Amino acid sequence: MTSTGERLVENMTAAERERAERVESVLPALREAAAAADGAAEFPIGHVALLREAGLLGLVVPAEYGGLGGGLRDLAAATYAMGTACPSTALAYFFHNTSASRGLLPLEAIEAGLFTGDEEVKPVRAFAEKVLNRMAAGTWMANFASEEVKSSGANIAIATTAVPAEGGWVLNGVKSFGCATGVADTYLVTARLDGTSDADGLALFLVPREAPGVASRTPWNGLGMRASNNHGVTLTDVFIPAEEALTVPGAFVRMLTMSRGSFVGNQVAISACYLGAARTVYDFAVDRLTRKTFADSGRPIASSPMHQVIIGDMTERLETACLWIRRQLELETSEPPLRPKPEVYRQWRIAKGDIAEACFQVALGAFKACGTSTATMDGIVGRALRDLAMGLVMTFPAERGRLEAAQIITENKENELFASVPE
Amino acid sequence: MTSTGERLVENMTAAERERAERVESVLPALREAAAAADGAAEFPIGHVALLREAGLLGLVVPAEYGGLGGGLRDLAAATYAMGTACPSTALAYFFHNTSASRGLLPLEAIEAGLFTGDEEVKPVRAFAEKVLNRMAAGTWMANFASEEVKSSGANIAIATTAVPAEGGWVLNGVKSFGCATGVADTYLVTARLDGTSDADGLALFLVPREAPGVASRTPWNGLGMRASNNHGVTLTDVFIPAEEALTVPGAFVRMLTMSRGSFVGNQVAISACYLGAARTVYDFAVDRLTRKTFADSGRPIASSPMHQVIIGDMTERLETACLWIRRQLELETSEPPLRPKPEVYRQWRIAKGDIAEACFQVALGAFKACGTSTATMDGIVGRALRDLAMGLVMTFPAERGRLEAAQIITENKENELFASVPE
Amino acid sequence: MTSTGERLVENMTAAERERAERVESVLPALREAAAAADGAAEFPIGHVALLREAGLLGLVVPAEYGGLGGGLRDLAAATYAMGTACPSTALAYFFHNTSASRGLLPLEAIEAGLFTGDEEVKPVRAFAEKVLNRMAAGTWMANFASEEVKSSGANIAIATTAVPAEGGWVLNGVKSFGCATGVADTYLVTARLDGTSDADGLALFLVPREAPGVASRTPWNGLGMRASNNHGVTLTDVFIPAEEALTVPGAFVRMLTMSRGSFVGNQVAISACYLGAARTVYDFAVDRLTRKTFADSGRPIASSPMHQVIIGDMTERLETACLWIRRQLELETSEPPLRPKPEVYRQWRIAKGDIAEACFQVALGAFKACGTSTATMDGIVGRALRDLAMGLVMTFPAERGRLEAAQIITENKENELFASVPE
Amino acid sequence: MTSTGERLVENMTAAERERAERVESVLPALREAAAAADGAAEFPIGHVALLREAGLLGLVVPAEYGGLGGGLRDLAAATYAMGTACPSTALAYFFHNTSASRGLLPLEAIEAGLFTGDEEVKPVRAFAEKVLNRMAAGTWMANFASEEVKSSGANIAIATTAVPAEGGWVLNGVKSFGCATGVADTYLVTARLDGTSDADGLALFLVPREAPGVASRTPWNGLGMRASNNHGVTLTDVFIPAEEALTVPGAFVRMLTMSRGSFVGNQVAISACYLGAARTVYDFAVDRLTRKTFADSGRPIASSPMHQVIIGDMTERLETACLWIRRQLELETSEPPLRPKPEVYRQWRIAKGDIAEACFQVALGAFKACGTSTATMDGIVGRALRDLAMGLVMTFPAERGRLEAAQIITENKENELFASVPE
Repeated sequence: MTSTGERLVENMTAAERERAERVESVLPALREAAAAADGAAEFPIGHVALLREAGLLGLVVPAEYGGLGGGLRDLAAATYAMGTACPSTALAYFFHNTSASRGLLPLEAIEAGLFTGDEEVKPVRAFAEKVLNRMAAGTWMANFASEEVKSSGANIAIATTAVPAEGGWVLNGVKSFGCATGVADTYLVTARLDGTSDADGLALFLVPREAPGVASRTPWNGLGMRASNNHGVTLTDVFIPAEEALTVPGAFVRMLTMSRGSFVGNQVAISACYLGAARTVYDFAVDRLTRKTFADSGRPIASSPMHQVIIGDMTERLETACLWIRRQLELETSEPPLRPKPEVYRQWRIAKGDIAEACFQVALGAFKACGTSTATMDGIVGRALRDLAMGLVMTFPAERGRLEAAQIITENKENELFASVPE
Repeated sequence: MTSTGERLVENMTAAERERAERVESVLPALREAAAAADGAAEFPIGHVALLREAGLLGLVVPAEYGGLGGGLRDLAAATYAMGTACPSTALAYFFHNTSASRGLLPLEAIEAGLFTGDEEVKPVRAFAEKVLNRMAAGTWMANFASEEVKSSGANIAIATTAVPAEGGWVLNGVKSFGCATGVADTYLVTARLDGTSDADGLALFLVPREAPGVASRTPWNGLGMRASNNHGVTLTDVFIPAEEALTVPGAFVRMLTMSRGSFVGNQVAISACYLGAARTVYDFAVDRLTRKTFADSGRPIASSPMHQVIIGDMTERLETACLWIRRQLELETSEPPLRPKPEVYRQWRIAKGDIAEACFQVALGAFKACGTSTATMDGIVGRALRDLAMGLVMTFPAERGRLEAAQIITENKENELFASVPE
Repeated sequence: MTSTGERLVENMTAAERERAERVESVLPALREAAAAADGAAEFPIGHVALLREAGLLGLVVPAEYGGLGGGLRDLAAATYAMGTACPSTALAYFFHNTSASRGLLPLEAIEAGLFTGDEEVKPVRAFAEKVLNRMAAGTWMANFASEEVKSSGANIAIATTAVPAEGGWVLNGVKSFGCATGVADTYLVTARLDGTSDADGLALFLVPREAPGVASRTPWNGLGMRASNNHGVTLTDVFIPAEEALTVPGAFVRMLTMSRGSFVGNQVAISACYLGAARTVYDFAVDRLTRKTFADSGRPIASSPMHQVIIGDMTERLETACLWIRRQLELETSEPPLRPKPEVYRQWRIAKGDIAEACFQVALGAFKACGTSTATMDGIVGRALRDLAMGLVMTFPAERGRLEAAQIITENKENELFASVPE
Repeated sequence: MTSTGERLVENMTAAERERAERVESVLPALREAAAAADGAAEFPIGHVALLREAGLLGLVVPAEYGGLGGGLRDLAAATYAMGTACPSTALAYFFHNTSASRGLLPLEAIEAGLFTGDEEVKPVRAFAEKVLNRMAAGTWMANFASEEVKSSGANIAIATTAVPAEGGWVLNGVKSFGCATGVADTYLVTARLDGTSDADGLALFLVPREAPGVASRTPWNGLGMRASNNHGVTLTDVFIPAEEALTVPGAFVRMLTMSRGSFVGNQVAISACYLGAARTVYDFAVDRLTRKTFADSGRPIASSPMHQVIIGDMTERLETACLWIRRQLELETSEPPLRPKPEVYRQWRIAKGDIAEACFQVALGAFKACGTSTATMDGIVGRALRDLAMGLVMTFPAERGRLEAAQIITENKENELFASVPE
């Protein structure tokens, strides 16, 4: 499995293979640009056209809306493959694709009868189809949800506020994290409607990158994933027309219930970005350590007891991360479902943290085993250590996943996904 | 997943489900006898008839030889289920079933053209069919391979020797480990032919329990798995007729090459015994800790920070062990094979050690979390800690599996499975 | 440091060395009796006289009360040394010595002015001196504090109740844990005075083993430390004369404040019991693995990569436990104090859990490394695994110590040591 | 112990305190320059004068040679303190001080009678005194030993070669690692004498920074410890006068035998650099997490279960590293020695790796606990993670220390410290 040609997803259908090959066609360009992009801490602007021309902006958009018709397996396969080449690009691409959930889940919710009456169904369907059609047509749609405020009871707290205005809404707030800042065509912004105080008041807005009042925040000097442009935006009196928003009360919360398990139904694909990066540094380290030799014995460096221990540990960590991802993919895509949703969700809390930790441990093992000569800022090992450290905070540490699972098991209690934070 | 009705193997066929139900029908009897059997350190003799009457001695024997036609998925499902009830019985039953490999692999090897000419094919086929027919007919066939001598280059070293005699062979040696000692009808004994010095000289003998010269060794006082009767036998001038042996030169080695991955092709089912035991102690601990409360706060013991940490860790360990087992089952049963054999084998080295370690950690977590009141010799927790500690030495520690994988990766070198140890 | 002659405490004074030699004089008898005592699950009754005649029942009683004048360093040195020979005896002996704290701490509290007026000072001093004089004179005074009820806010919760009666008190309750049950001459019992509801109402009683109403609970079938007779007692209308009790309101709480750090000032010596046991199993394993050889290579078993890893890990764990104990001893005996008391206390929470965990890991490493042949109920390895598992619950798991430290650091908040639990 | 004023070394003498205060006087300047120095990846040139003027270049030089007369305790205290302010400076300063061992150990070796006759004693003493006098007088003497070639049997392999020339020697080679490259006044270079093939042929040379043929290698882009200028030098036909060299055959090896334990007798002070850095990031994280609060509950972030677990773990790791360092300091400075040298040495192998690992874990814990907002290249947390990752490769991983200890224990075999590597 150390061959770089290996795919994360097994037993692909012919259609999945075709989509995977589209992804693989862009990998050389991603790989070539990765080091410089990390150094410059900038998303390579050319990648937008590259991915658009490969049709990949519509990867998970159903064919009826003009997309490639892929699903979660495709997305995870894609972010894994891109992660082996340029983890930052994989991450930004992942967040573009999560925007599709704001089209797919509402449509599923309509199907499931969660919206009633034309006054609900019509605007929900219109917004959903707009999102999907635009993505398929080549709009890079960055997903801006996170903010800096922290809530002890919810994973994401929203303080950005939309006030009604003639023909639309006026947005004010700060989005602290969101890949493809300054690069994406459209920012999909989650905000709370003024005057509401719970998650039912959350709404979605399609904010053009160049709309008046939108400004990129100062790029921050991230330790890793530096080319994902995740510095976020400030919104100052940004006017958004009513038809570019989904403001039906409770629509946001209802659509979330349609997810198969992890959050909005695709988080396993963010973990795949990190796994791809871990795979690359693993292959690099094993190759290097088996080629380089001791001056006295002529034996490979890899054969020393310490190196054997570290290589064994790295292998176990990498395989364990693969197991968690493949299992989660199976749980979230199997028909009929293998397990009830609460169990799929609980499993994901552990998986998410453990994958982040395991991938980081692979990079750390490579760092220790390869020694001072690769302990640089740049280079495969140094970059992987930095990129994979980010996985521990961009997703979350294993400690948290296990504690959340324990709480679910012993108290049947979960964190809320989103909270509205009125001032 | 804490419901005890859960099965290890998913998406069972109707035939698999039928076989699983046979297994489930005996579980209450196993569960009831488990504590006393552990205390007495004796395999409950009635279990032989119980399993025979349920048809389970032929679980993995093809229907054409009179068996139930199960495969590796059935066997792992069975040992897991039995492991939740009585790990000792599960272990002994596992070793009975491994005997079937000495029938199945030779037949596959004939099919693959590894034997040529009637003088090879005929005796190999005759022996193989004899093994399978007898098992299906209700013979408990204990598999006696291991000996006390250790080899640095092979997993199992064989010093027991067979000398030709009129109409057959005379065996001398000591088998240090073999479940169902004194209980099985037949001991399947691996020995080296006198005058040979490598694995090509290894041969198989069907030794009746009551044959002259066969004696059970003194039962040892094992820490766990005490009711599996694994004390082994001494063979002193035991005569075995030629037709009860497989002595074709190299037959043993050739048949081993047919295995799908792990050893003789069923090791994943020994790990399933331990996983079953881990599941039971996990369920017990979570149930107990969520029911018992603090005297002052009235909150469940499980809610204390320490208990939350331990429960989270136990859950993660149990799920990880499940992942490794399910993946290995998939690797060894998928058609066409998902991965090349060397990778399946390497994966198994890590899996075997990690599963043993993870299952032990579940018991240790339960022990810590439940505290002094369950820290007894007997009882679910104390027994699980002892039984699962045995998993660390009966299979092997995680440290070894990872080191073996590292060696395979860096030097393309594996341990031999069997070595002949001439005096 | 693998020589068994090594002592835990370094730079002993001449007086400390003399006391250590007394301890060492009884070790051969302890070592000889250990296996049988574990098997029978009974404290060897002859050890009472053995230790009494060696003067060791007064080890930590000041010379002015007839004792040997030892301190915490002596006690830890003694329990460590005994732990290398018979951990159960070491544990029971430790709990005898903790009774001295109920003499020493009150005297220190008087000295510090925590008691005022003859009506407080006189009875406190009288009780304290009585405890010390009796111990020095050869009374085995078992310390019975723990009960089964658990409190989320305190380490030990007391429900045993004393009701005033003519000339004394009547006790009713159950003490669930207390070494030397049925063997000690006197049980030092902590109880709450009827009508009180907080720790100020806690009082101490000297209960003769044979007093009417005192009964040993049924011996339990402990996993380890089986010869410490820790099954505890029931007290049914037990009358205790007033002069055999310390019932001054708040006396108990005030005396506790005099401790140098860990609880009543000697807990580091309970950890030393486990460390002694860990030392013995470590020495056994290293010796065995360096003597036994592989049949093929003739090299010691210890030289295999797996054994090298495990031996390295065991060594690190053993040394780490030594570091924590030696440091804590230094913190609790240095004059002037090296650190403020809250830090000494916080350090101890981590130390206590980490030592228990590290010692258990040493036994687990020995178990894995020595393999099936020593994986027995009895024998050095099996016994050590069981005895050291008890350390995880008799003290507490490392997870708890670290969480308590975190709470102290972040909230300046500690658990109470004792709580009164009115019905 | 979280007060930043805390010292690593306890119970200092008055003279030690005076020296510690000199160190503390420079800390504000070090702290202020640290971030910019890391950014620029350059040792702040002004620090040379700063330390020189504080008299600190002679910290461990005996007073009779003009130094401050400090010992190993002083050095460890100094590098720890500097490590809390600027780990790069601490590291470079450490390597300057190691040069003193090339003066102190030869003098001790003479004292011990390891050199005989004036033809040995005179040149050895002359060289030793020259080193010490110059350091005390204000020469920054960088120690250049390491090279890129690796040996499986020795820790450091030397290929740089000295060929005799008129009045001296001509050096050729590459020194791959050596702090204060381009900054130190003198490079103390270890080289092999041409025509020799073992460690007896190793010799020492005092190479002026500006000598013809000396060139700094291209600065590398290190992940951490970026301001220590450790890029090393190339030596091309560099002429060194005979009196600036120590070329007595075997002098180097004999002097090494005088060390109290760790290598040349001061390695514990390199670990102290990392411990200082770990202390700073620990204090930062605890302070930040106890100040910042959740928007909904108002409780400190530190109070969340995940944060409690991580803070508990960080505390345990930091304390454990302190324990190892303090113990090693005690072992290497106590008079009379507490333990025989081989044990001191073995203990150090474990300590060195464990300290590096523990300190890195502290930084990793801070990184996880503080989250994305401090996950930057610069800032306390990002810098600590990078600097402490370097500790894993500049000293070595814990895996290696434990394996070396295992080998010493089971085979009485140690790696050589230095090997000569003839072409």
